[in-house]
Amino acid sequence: MEWYLIGTAAALLTTFGFVPQIIKIHRTKCAKGVSLATFYQYGVGVILWTLYGIHLGDIIIITANTVSFITIVAAIVLYYRYD
Amino acid sequence: MEWYLIGTAAALLTTFGFVPQIIKIHRTKCAKGVSLATFYQYGVGVILWTLYGIHLGDIIIITANTVSFITIVAAIVLYYRYD
Repeated sequence: MEWYLIGTAAALLTTFGFVPQIIKIHRTKCAKGVSLATFYQYGVGVILWTLYGIHLGDIIIITANTVSFITIVAAIVLYYRYD
Repeated sequence: MEWYLIGTAAALLTTFGFVPQIIKIHRTKCAKGVSLATFYQYGVGVILWTLYGIHLGDIIIITANTVSFITIVAAIVLYYRYD
């Protein structure tokens, strides 16, 4: 049971890992210093993870990476808006 | 076989996802705009993923998250150096 909680906490922390960065760009209205390449690299990575999850039929991999992809798209949109 | 390659590519892209950000901080000698909270959140996340991987006995989860942790520590060190 505690392992289930550790796995869930791990997934939540990394799935929403870019949220503080998104909040910071939004608040400061500035994306200076932020790496767009990191967003694109993670973006392609989570798309491939989602495809791999579909192949495995693993709903957790699919859900976590789809949510992560949405946060990355938000980060990229904010980057172009405020860069 | 192609699924194995997709899974491997996904793992490599996300494991080394912060490398472009590290290079950018190092090159510009500036961490302005970068979210330290995102680094800490990912850092705790990948520690928990590593523990979960040890529990599962899955060498891929352990390796990917240990390498990711090292890149995040490098990002945090650079952040404090140049912030």
